[in-house]
Amino acid sequence: MNGLDEEPMAPQTFLYGCVLEAGKEVVFNPEDDEFEHQLDLRMACVDPSTKDELHMVEVEGQDTEGQKIKAALVSLKPSTLPSVCLGGFTITPPAVFRLKAGSGPIHISGQHLVMMEADQSFDEDDDDDDE
Amino acid sequence: MNGLDEEPMAPQTFLYGCVLEAGKEVVFNPEDDEFEHQLDLRMACVDPSTKDELHMVEVEGQDTEGQKIKAALVSLKPSTLPSVCLGGFTITPPAVFRLKAGSGPIHISGQHLVMMEADQSFDEDDDDDDE
Amino acid sequence: MNGLDEEPMAPQTFLYGCVLEAGKEVVFNPEDDEFEHQLDLRMACVDPSTKDELHMVEVEGQDTEGQKIKAALVSLKPSTLPSVCLGGFTITPPAVFRLKAGSGPIHISGQHLVMMEADQSFDEDDDDDDE
Amino acid sequence: MNGLDEEPMAPQTFLYGCVLEAGKEVVFNPEDDEFEHQLDLRMACVDPSTKDELHMVEVEGQDTEGQKIKAALVSLKPSTLPSVCLGGFTITPPAVFRLKAGSGPIHISGQHLVMMEADQSFDEDDDDDDE
Amino acid sequence: MNGLDEEPMAPQTFLYGCVLEAGKEVVFNPEDDEFEHQLDLRMACVDPSTKDELHMVEVEGQDTEGQKIKAALVSLKPSTLPSVCLGGFTITPPAVFRLKAGSGPIHISGQHLVMMEADQSFDEDDDDDDE
Repeated sequence: MNGLDEEPMAPQTFLYGCVLEAGKEVVFNPEDDEFEHQLDLRMACVDPSTKDELHMVEVEGQDTEGQKIKAALVSLKPSTLPSVCLGGFTITPPAVFRLKAGSGPIHISGQHLVMMEADQSFDEDDDDDDE
Repeated sequence: MNGLDEEPMAPQTFLYGCVLEAGKEVVFNPEDDEFEHQLDLRMACVDPSTKDELHMVEVEGQDTEGQKIKAALVSLKPSTLPSVCLGGFTITPPAVFRLKAGSGPIHISGQHLVMMEADQSFDEDDDDDDE
Repeated sequence: MNGLDEEPMAPQTFLYGCVLEAGKEVVFNPEDDEFEHQLDLRMACVDPSTKDELHMVEVEGQDTEGQKIKAALVSLKPSTLPSVCLGGFTITPPAVFRLKAGSGPIHISGQHLVMMEADQSFDEDDDDDDE
Repeated sequence: MNGLDEEPMAPQTFLYGCVLEAGKEVVFNPEDDEFEHQLDLRMACVDPSTKDELHMVEVEGQDTEGQKIKAALVSLKPSTLPSVCLGGFTITPPAVFRLKAGSGPIHISGQHLVMMEADQSFDEDDDDDDE
Repeated sequence: MNGLDEEPMAPQTFLYGCVLEAGKEVVFNPEDDEFEHQLDLRMACVDPSTKDELHMVEVEGQDTEGQKIKAALVSLKPSTLPSVCLGGFTITPPAVFRLKAGSGPIHISGQHLVMMEADQSFDEDDDDDDE
């Protein structure tokens, strides 16, 4: 991939998952390395221990003015809708996830993308990690 | 990112969320800066206070002739379908969201994209905003 | 955007919406301007007046041989599934939408894309249309 | 579009639809023209004549070793889930669709993409087919 | 496709499917050829033999630090939600799928992408495999 100047960013894809419970916030704010970070949220789901009530997940991020805003991400209820596809909802840090309603647990999953310059690729090295 | 002339637009992604209630319109019409704005709608959901009736969200925008048109975006009912993925429905301003049926609240969320010339990037500065 | 020869097509995004009722066809066949037209279907939904029966939407278009074919797009029933994400189903004109089952109304919405050469952009002018 | 050497493939989009019934396979294997063919599956749905039992659609294709494999594409039941978005599931020929459970009919729809070299475009001609 | 140096990777798309049952893990870790592998998960569904209880699928992969993490992918119950679109959830190897709840079977399907250099294309040869 060396010598390729036309593709300035080569995104690396990692697994992301978190569990939300009442009163427990989950922060997405990777430490300041030289890379750009992004979440592509894919799925939200309940588990067998989730109480049968409506759960609503809220995400807190930034609007175009740099102000904090809150948005409702998804509402789930085990007996009605146990899973919802989030369709690649892009979250840029810093962001916070929390349950606005319901006691949980609610699971959120997706991809953690790391955009790096082509010459910073840690691609091959990482793929060698054994299982 | 300077010196890159081949990528004229570098979209910045911000969080977008709004709450719809009967008789309350939400307008998406960012003020006239030099940037192009766009909404990528991701999710619509009810919350625990939403009455168990069918809610229908309408969006008003422009067709190819520049005429105002209205389209039904999504229908939700707490006991049947509390969340729906909107799959990246692209909205270009000016647009208006309102409840055509139901008393709400209904939550809409997604990404607010700002397309700017590469040399207008306010990227690094904004990322430094602390949490 | 002038001087950019490498991007031959700059798609413009407009809102699209239609309402299907028994016995009423909706045709998508924009008049022959010099542009290429396309629909990206995003959502189908019922409304409060839709009878509680299974509705099936059919789309008629062209296959690779230029022959007319019909395909079932989506089935909805108010009490079971009032909204379905169509996920960006691409429709190229000429196309016809109709209810194959049910009396409606069923709402279809999405984006009407107009692909035009870079030097034909009616971008800025259209954005100036006032609300 | 002539004179454009940088875009080697210009995909053309056609409508695809098929109906699955017990004991009836549907093969997707376009004849060997010089083009590359691909299906982007968008929707699966029942119709009013579909019996209220669980239907499971199976697709048979090739894995990375060139061996035939079977995968479950979607499960539908009229009273529970009459439509499912397939989200652009890409199928490369040869492929076979069949009902693994249920008697049908189940409808599958999406886009049939034909990738052709820029100088082989049959674009304008096909668009002239009248309705 | 020869002579094209500007497109370093040409992804080939193959069918992927697996079946999850209690106590049976499915590993996605293609052998070390020179290619990059990736799964784009599209659908999860039950089948007629799946017991009517909540099933939760877990995926184990790597986070940005190279550490193993687990994420809940989807929850399904035959009588509530027999199929869920996974929307192109990207999985990079090594990854493991397992049922965290429920006895199965649960079917997972999608595309297995193989990224190869343009001059390593095994495209035409593979397409000649007869059905």
